[in-house]
Amino acid sequence: MTITITAFERSPDGGKGLARDMRVRWALEEVGQPYDVRLLSFKAMKEPAHLALHPFGQIPTYEEGDLALFESGAIVLHIAERHAGLLPDDTNARARAINWIFAALSTMEPPIVDREIARFLEGDKSWYEERLSMVLGRIRKRLSDLSARLGDANWLDGEFSAGDLQMVSVLLRLKGSGMLDEYPNLSAYVARGEARPAYKRAFDAQLAVLTAASTG
Amino acid sequence: MTITITAFERSPDGGKGLARDMRVRWALEEVGQPYDVRLLSFKAMKEPAHLALHPFGQIPTYEEGDLALFESGAIVLHIAERHAGLLPDDTNARARAINWIFAALSTMEPPIVDREIARFLEGDKSWYEERLSMVLGRIRKRLSDLSARLGDANWLDGEFSAGDLQMVSVLLRLKGSGMLDEYPNLSAYVARGEARPAYKRAFDAQLAVLTAASTG
Repeated sequence: MTITITAFERSPDGGKGLARDMRVRWALEEVGQPYDVRLLSFKAMKEPAHLALHPFGQIPTYEEGDLALFESGAIVLHIAERHAGLLPDDTNARARAINWIFAALSTMEPPIVDREIARFLEGDKSWYEERLSMVLGRIRKRLSDLSARLGDANWLDGEFSAGDLQMVSVLLRLKGSGMLDEYPNLSAYVARGEARPAYKRAFDAQLAVLTAASTG
Repeated sequence: MTITITAFERSPDGGKGLARDMRVRWALEEVGQPYDVRLLSFKAMKEPAHLALHPFGQIPTYEEGDLALFESGAIVLHIAERHAGLLPDDTNARARAINWIFAALSTMEPPIVDREIARFLEGDKSWYEERLSMVLGRIRKRLSDLSARLGDANWLDGEFSAGDLQMVSVLLRLKGSGMLDEYPNLSAYVARGEARPAYKRAFDAQLAVLTAASTG
């Protein structure tokens, strides 16, 4: 069955690969599944046709036959459960890999997104610098705990898994902040993720959309 | 195999059932699995023995034989996958229920937690009221989208599932804010969750810890 995902017609990040369709593309590339992409304008994302697929009017969505999903976390897990390559076979190791998916999305990502929301919504407020330093403190606490757990391992629990795919994707949002440089093992971990051929193919595919839009 | 979870020795919410062990207790009650609870002081949560189980020094954790998990989202999903009662049998319906778990934790919960963080960390700042209104705006946008999707259904997608368990748990954090009253179908949805016998048993169990501590 054909897999169709949705993505931004013009990504707000200018092709840095931070939009969440990137995580789905990466997962599909890891497991070797082809997919189609339907591009959406910001206007189209808020129209009934898309809201029927995604009640919060965002991207990505995932359609495969009769199935429609709309949370990138659930989509990546779905792909990982259906195809070999993103979850270990051992039952307990599999549960631990899924645990890291949730750790990436529920524990690490919220303060990292807060930094972006603060910049976007409060960048012109008198309190911005003081509040930003509070948010950075919360991010550093999480990075420090994660760094301690990772140690000198290549991946969070044995072989590369969907948990690493999500964690690397979350940490990539800090690229350019300089914060990852404070934790050399996390920097190296993210670089290992970016060096994977599947990551590169996914990155190039999302960038090609932008290039086509700007020259089209 | 015995299931052991960890919980606060003295819950910061005073027994309102908002600590995340409640979600795990509720899931275990729904599927009829007994469990042991190990109570932790705030000090013990930051000590090496607990950090080995939970790298971010929080509760709950879940131990079952050789398996140890530490994210409540992953723990509830693990319970739902191992025991009947929290996920539909149909493959696509199952994927959609898991999608709602992620929607609860990744889309709904972050702005709701932001409100609590703002109150806790910024309640005494000059900017508090102005920033709080921004956070409340983000929460209302999500509630409005969720309310539109739920409509007059009892649960998010067919029968009660782990997705509803997580969504109700997340929305319960707004109890007392008055915000749920603005969306009568969401208020009724949360009330349906709280009325489930398994929810009540879990609630009473977490409250009993507090009562024992205060009279002990």
